[in-house]
Amino acid sequence: MPKLSKTECTASLKAVGDALYVIGGKWKLRIIIALLEGNKRFNELQRTVEGISARVLSNELKELELNGFVNRNVYVKTPVIVEYELTKYSETLEKILQSLSEWGTMHRKKLKLGGKK
Amino acid sequence: MPKLSKTECTASLKAVGDALYVIGGKWKLRIIIALLEGNKRFNELQRTVEGISARVLSNELKELELNGFVNRNVYVKTPVIVEYELTKYSETLEKILQSLSEWGTMHRKKLKLGGKK
Repeated sequence: MPKLSKTECTASLKAVGDALYVIGGKWKLRIIIALLEGNKRFNELQRTVEGISARVLSNELKELELNGFVNRNVYVKTPVIVEYELTKYSETLEKILQSLSEWGTMHRKKLKLGGKK
Repeated sequence: MPKLSKTECTASLKAVGDALYVIGGKWKLRIIIALLEGNKRFNELQRTVEGISARVLSNELKELELNGFVNRNVYVKTPVIVEYELTKYSETLEKILQSLSEWGTMHRKKLKLGGKK
């Protein structure tokens, strides 16, 4: 990995800090991955993202909506159906999701092989 | 972004979950970026990663060491010098850091232009 100059380091810290501020934390990227399978209702989403509580999922979805990653669609039927779907903007996260997914797979293999740790 | 099948979605959730378990949170990637500028002593590191407390930095460094990203080098002089450096394994994070940094820069520009949010 190339060394960074002081200026590059400061810029990178700021940019990664900005990114983590919006999509960091334990759940947001996982909720987005769950929606990559297709639009989902709240309960389906909670089942797919294992371990998340309803309260936390509800908050995370509000933040994801606010930041333009998720649309909340309400279908006025009886009963009312609420479905979450990814926006076009969520596609900008593709490289991040891909690199994290590849890294996670590689790291797990390495641990199994009994490498460092 | 391509839709995921149920199997792909489950695999991706697991892999990204694994990655976030090891390098997630507010600080770890930022500490690694700070060390990309060069080896640093504890106080330098705390100054570079703005906003981190000494207690949190100390814990994060221990975890980064445990997971094989950082070496803690002790030079027996008077006074003793302790320096942190990145390991070879930390280089596997390059794509993740790059994609987060690019995305953060893009997202900030978009907000400035008054797009969604």
